Amino acid sequence: MAFEKVKRSENYSEWYNQLVKNADLAEHSAVKGCMVIKPYGYAIWEKIQRQLDDMFKETGHTNAYFPLFVPKSLFEKEEKNAEGFAKECAVVTHYRLKANPDKPGTLMADPDSKLEEELVVRPTSEAIIWNTYRNWIQSYRDLPILINQWANVVRWEMRTRLFLRTAEFLWQEGHTAHATKAEAIEETVKMLEVYAEFAENFMAIPVIKGVKTENERFAGADDTYCIEGMMQDGKALQMGTSHFLGQNFAKAFDVKFQSKEGKLEHVWATSWGVSTRLMGALIMVHSDDEGLVLPPKLAPIHVVIVPVFKTEEDLQKIEAAMAPFIQAWKKLGITVKFDHRDTLKPGFKFAEWELKGVPVRLAVGNRDLENGTIEIARRDTKEKNVVAMDGVIDYVSNLLDDIQSNLFNRAQEWRNEKVFEVNSWEEFLDVIQVKEGFAMAHWDGTGETEEKIKEMTKATIRCIPLDRKEEAGVCVLTGKPSAGRVVFAKAY
Amino acid sequence: MAFEKVKRSENYSEWYNQLVKNADLAEHSAVKGCMVIKPYGYAIWEKIQRQLDDMFKETGHTNAYFPLFVPKSLFEKEEKNAEGFAKECAVVTHYRLKANPDKPGTLMADPDSKLEEELVVRPTSEAIIWNTYRNWIQSYRDLPILINQWANVVRWEMRTRLFLRTAEFLWQEGHTAHATKAEAIEETVKMLEVYAEFAENFMAIPVIKGVKTENERFAGADDTYCIEGMMQDGKALQMGTSHFLGQNFAKAFDVKFQSKEGKLEHVWATSWGVSTRLMGALIMVHSDDEGLVLPPKLAPIHVVIVPVFKTEEDLQKIEAAMAPFIQAWKKLGITVKFDHRDTLKPGFKFAEWELKGVPVRLAVGNRDLENGTIEIARRDTKEKNVVAMDGVIDYVSNLLDDIQSNLFNRAQEWRNEKVFEVNSWEEFLDVIQVKEGFAMAHWDGTGETEEKIKEMTKATIRCIPLDRKEEAGVCVLTGKPSAGRVVFAKAY
Repeated sequence: MAFEKVKRSENYSEWYNQLVKNADLAEHSAVKGCMVIKPYGYAIWEKIQRQLDDMFKETGHTNAYFPLFVPKSLFEKEEKNAEGFAKECAVVTHYRLKANPDKPGTLMADPDSKLEEELVVRPTSEAIIWNTYRNWIQSYRDLPILINQWANVVRWEMRTRLFLRTAEFLWQEGHTAHATKAEAIEETVKMLEVYAEFAENFMAIPVIKGVKTENERFAGADDTYCIEGMMQDGKALQMGTSHFLGQNFAKAFDVKFQSKEGKLEHVWATSWGVSTRLMGALIMVHSDDEGLVLPPKLAPIHVVIVPVFKTEEDLQKIEAAMAPFIQAWKKLGITVKFDHRDTLKPGFKFAEWELKGVPVRLAVGNRDLENGTIEIARRDTKEKNVVAMDGVIDYVSNLLDDIQSNLFNRAQEWRNEKVFEVNSWEEFLDVIQVKEGFAMAHWDGTGETEEKIKEMTKATIRCIPLDRKEEAGVCVLTGKPSAGRVVFAKAY
Repeated sequence: MAFEKVKRSENYSEWYNQLVKNADLAEHSAVKGCMVIKPYGYAIWEKIQRQLDDMFKETGHTNAYFPLFVPKSLFEKEEKNAEGFAKECAVVTHYRLKANPDKPGTLMADPDSKLEEELVVRPTSEAIIWNTYRNWIQSYRDLPILINQWANVVRWEMRTRLFLRTAEFLWQEGHTAHATKAEAIEETVKMLEVYAEFAENFMAIPVIKGVKTENERFAGADDTYCIEGMMQDGKALQMGTSHFLGQNFAKAFDVKFQSKEGKLEHVWATSWGVSTRLMGALIMVHSDDEGLVLPPKLAPIHVVIVPVFKTEEDLQKIEAAMAPFIQAWKKLGITVKFDHRDTLKPGFKFAEWELKGVPVRLAVGNRDLENGTIEIARRDTKEKNVVAMDGVIDYVSNLLDDIQSNLFNRAQEWRNEKVFEVNSWEEFLDVIQVKEGFAMAHWDGTGETEEKIKEMTKATIRCIPLDRKEEAGVCVLTGKPSAGRVVFAKAY
């Protein structure tokens, strides 16, 4: 095992990097800022995809696919959006390579293949999609359009971290079109709820639902809703966003429809997305110094069986004894791996599967077969129990449910311990800099104050919580009046 | 319905274009050569993906994800591969846009963001993947690596057709690494078999399995295996390829492993892929002048129920009567759509669902409810039957199976009618130019002859069939000796 056991308490950031590498989740590639998602990491992403996709379809959405490239002239059309993403755009300028006459054996972009118009590699797809929707929408009967896309996008980044911030990442982006403002807002909130439900019930991560301030809004949105999770180091991670885009894109791309009353009106829009960043959250919230900890609902392998044996004959005996259990679990949707490898000792295997976050590990030896017992270890608490083979099928099934809810409860408990109401600048600094958590603080509502606090402390307003109580107060920095608390935190 | 009913017999190519458009499968985008895959088209692609993905996993493969971009210096390394794709590469040269001072309100590639090294948008991923595998492989214990990737790729095309030839397309690409030549060849053939099984049992398209000639080989492969289908116009469409890459990429990227015997050896490779081109084949093989015809195993909707009603009350009565059937079909994995729309007449709906290729259509009116009957129409033969409601659940389930096998049989029949053994140049020309089919002809084995025949007739060698009998003969063009027949045809 190459796992170098940097502890979270020693260097959280380095612990994360090593965990991603050692648990075989992802690695840096030869392309600056782009990652390779390795099979084990990708298997977790597939679980995330499948579940979200089901939830999108249950809420009436269908998938489609739009081009990777956006012609510059389309990209420019929605000004705020263009301005917001211009600095991160990979630009295609040529469509052919040719032999480089000056350096034999190498290629160069063929000057004769220079494009008349540059193509932007999509950083997000509002522009290309709304340009398409123009042709799809004439009448109110064509609305709503409820489409999602699974795709790769590119946002050039100088400082990257695996899953958390990479130049290319995988995501889904929903793009919906509506006849009324109310319906578009309803959709925006509905998808935020889908994200929150997914985060809490599948990722086992409690989240705060809220609205971004103007400074933190998606470029081109009238409102950005978000879910914010807390990592074990007390920093926030934005786990998903749902944007109410108003009529901004409809106006930029001239998308109008004839209403029931026969009027020509601009269409209302939303967009919403989550990305492979979720992998970063999943890792950071649950894992420990021994490695990854996965909630059963997103684990590619639920149960690993490590046989404890000396001879090939013993191994076969153990495998035969476990076969009916494996069958029974399979029928319950529980994925079991029997670790046959005969070149590694059980202790090594235990550590390896611990590193990979498999929720339940069984150890079975000759004596167990004689006694009709199995040793069962749960990854989350590391508790071990010797359990009778009779009833072990249900035991494991229940244990997986228990681990799922325990992970959520545990995450919620330590998050709640790190969320503080603060009423003075000293308290604010104490939470952000010493206690390292979320500061629920009054704020005067101005971008200037927000900016100043960010400069002074690196803390940003993560969101204005949807469920905040209206409570008059004074801004923690300026003393000016405030209508309620917002969430300040350092963030990924 | 905007379906303009160009007939296949009048203009096959225009019939295809209109069908793709009118059945809501895909359309051209604002980006030259790139398509938008619309929800209904994408739903079929998802069915294809899901099934193939299951088959890949059953054969021991896992998914992963590698970067979209390939640095030019890596792309160059395998010379044949680089040469083969250089002319079709989209090239990223800048990573930022900025305001264009000469044209207010527009953007330009920021000259200060020029990349030191250009990035190629992957036309295929051997280069980036083998550069990665170098770090994953030290010993024979690290082999085999059996990885697949679902991704978008870009091959610049001047003349494009929806699904069949687009600058960007979606595909899967398997990339495997092996310790021995024999094992790599076995993998190449195994995946060809997977593709053939998928084509025949799911797409209901009979295929010829074969090997490409050197001229038609994948750039960088030692051997390219393929499956070739016949479209209704008698042209061939290459539906999938599986490449034995020898040690070419291992040598180019210096990927060596220590064998069991302790020797340092280059790794053996395969790659294999199918793409959204399959959608083109699916459309062209089965559809007719009324629209799309889908094999049930890949149809997003299996059964549509069109209620025939005058009053809202009737509609509700029909829906209530059908609800238990819909439930029962759902349990059998049969997807049913009940067409509620009250602004369209049944006849219009019949035509629309026909256009969209739904395999089975039910019509139910008041009188049917009284009589306990349902009118059932099958899309493939357009036969209609009135069936008793008792037993309709099994009837439809069996009908779907029947349609699936009928489509295959029908496709096989007319394909077989258009495959001809030819023994003279006159016969060859007759098959290629008049009968418009596949010519099974002797060929002298040289690239020159192959090239000459292509120039004279536009027919290419689609493949050397795997199951061809060894049969001495003389080349249809040159009269030189030949060891067996190959498949000549015009192709997409």
